[in-house]
Amino acid sequence: VLGIWNFSNQMQIRRLGEKKLIQRLSGSIRTDRSVVKGIGDDCAVLRFSSTDYGLLACDMLVEGVHFMKKSPPAAVGWKGLGVNLSDVAAMGGKPRWAVVSLGLPPQTKTAYVDQLYKGLRRCAHRYGVNLVGGDTVRARQVVVNVALFGAVEKSRLVLRSQARAGDILMVTGRLGGSLASGKHLRFTPRLKEARSLVAHAKPHAMIDLSDGLFSDLGQLCRASRLGAWIESERIPCAKGSTWKQALTDGEDFELLLAVGPNEAESLFRWAKKHLNCRLTPIGRMRAKPKTVVVTRKGRPVRVSAKGFSHF
Amino acid sequence: VLGIWNFSNQMQIRRLGEKKLIQRLSGSIRTDRSVVKGIGDDCAVLRFSSTDYGLLACDMLVEGVHFMKKSPPAAVGWKGLGVNLSDVAAMGGKPRWAVVSLGLPPQTKTAYVDQLYKGLRRCAHRYGVNLVGGDTVRARQVVVNVALFGAVEKSRLVLRSQARAGDILMVTGRLGGSLASGKHLRFTPRLKEARSLVAHAKPHAMIDLSDGLFSDLGQLCRASRLGAWIESERIPCAKGSTWKQALTDGEDFELLLAVGPNEAESLFRWAKKHLNCRLTPIGRMRAKPKTVVVTRKGRPVRVSAKGFSHF
Repeated sequence: VLGIWNFSNQMQIRRLGEKKLIQRLSGSIRTDRSVVKGIGDDCAVLRFSSTDYGLLACDMLVEGVHFMKKSPPAAVGWKGLGVNLSDVAAMGGKPRWAVVSLGLPPQTKTAYVDQLYKGLRRCAHRYGVNLVGGDTVRARQVVVNVALFGAVEKSRLVLRSQARAGDILMVTGRLGGSLASGKHLRFTPRLKEARSLVAHAKPHAMIDLSDGLFSDLGQLCRASRLGAWIESERIPCAKGSTWKQALTDGEDFELLLAVGPNEAESLFRWAKKHLNCRLTPIGRMRAKPKTVVVTRKGRPVRVSAKGFSHF
Repeated sequence: VLGIWNFSNQMQIRRLGEKKLIQRLSGSIRTDRSVVKGIGDDCAVLRFSSTDYGLLACDMLVEGVHFMKKSPPAAVGWKGLGVNLSDVAAMGGKPRWAVVSLGLPPQTKTAYVDQLYKGLRRCAHRYGVNLVGGDTVRARQVVVNVALFGAVEKSRLVLRSQARAGDILMVTGRLGGSLASGKHLRFTPRLKEARSLVAHAKPHAMIDLSDGLFSDLGQLCRASRLGAWIESERIPCAKGSTWKQALTDGEDFELLLAVGPNEAESLFRWAKKHLNCRLTPIGRMRAKPKTVVVTRKGRPVRVSAKGFSHF
């Protein structure tokens, strides 16, 4: 039935790019009524119980791409689960159960795998996740895939597609230089912050910053069919990072929120007292779709970066 | 906190072997009350609703190990989901939602990825699975990871650990030569068969045959703290396979069942009429733990194979 594949489309995926590849693959997928939101947000949203939605996410980390051969394996394990926790945070949810697939070269040292699992277990323990299964297979490079199932109260679900024109954009923490500083291996997934934010004043939209602020804001705009203004002076830069790096570097794993203008002021004051990270207003959503304008001293500047693409 | 890892244990995982590696990694993992069964069965079993348990499984397929560069990509996609469906079948469950991570070299042709997804979608459609998300990343070899969430009525859950001494062992389909025949890429996950078997006469234990009958029976025995007898003449061999191949070849993705002796006869007759694959009695569970005896013409024979190990 499955036949021999033909070579009718010879274009390489690196010419297509990652976003177009994902659009292409997800285009013809049909789902049934159990799926509230399929491909296109940080997690899939699933009918689960009368009070909660189920959340399902997965992320694959590859040696040489998401971490290096010399990266501490405990940090690699931490990151493997952490990136999924960041996805669940962006939906306003709580993580529950995770399964881990490991691809390992046969010459891998047992100490390496022990440490990798130690990081995974530590992250799981810290954030109340149950590691419930996995798979270990032979591979040419180390590959860590974590799939995570979580849940969110129906009233607390936040999508990336529900931002409104006039919403204030805010980010948690500081941005930029995550690869250079090593933060990308040791970040704090903003689970507690997101839960307490959503409980206090639910944002209209939320997304986690994995590909870079400019790129991920573009995703939020596209999903919400809106545009945005960013005042570059307001972007909270990590130590040693320029505002351009803060705008385009990937793997910050902070959250970007779109908050109603009437709630923004009080949320900002509340966050100063109650949140254990900073929350910074950086711009606004605007009605004109598909355009993100970045200003410097009140004037629009050109931003060329597209964020990280795998291909 | 995570520190630099040290080289205190320099043994390579290929010297340790896959089973010992998994034991080592899963040893110190703690889970909470939401986990009915964690690592150690075909799927994790999770508290889900008042009537059903949740099931969670994941499998990673790697180019050069589970499929070849020249394997039809649609078949690779089919297999990626199929191996997880086989895991859900072995618990008596129904699949629901899947997420797919793809590792792809940048020079991969779009036609290859299109076909891979076509196989995935076809398998999902055939077995009522919703593809709800995924991740695509750069990798040196093609890697396909599928994580699947399913459910099973509490009364229909079958574990691998509940076999009893005296149970009759049966297998679905025919065994052996799966890699040579290409069945390993195009097998029928025994979902419908398992559902209808469990509804008719629930087996005490069930496991899917991925590493080879001898090896997987060993797992069932270990989990149930029992041993087994196999009459090699009874093993249903695939066309062109010897009984030794049927006993030790991997990737059959058939089911092995342990059925109470009083139900076995009637189940066997029922299966002849109602099951769309053969169901063959091949031996018995016995009280002496950890020993699987294979007989030929009534005499025990030595079996050296341990099944497939990745390291």
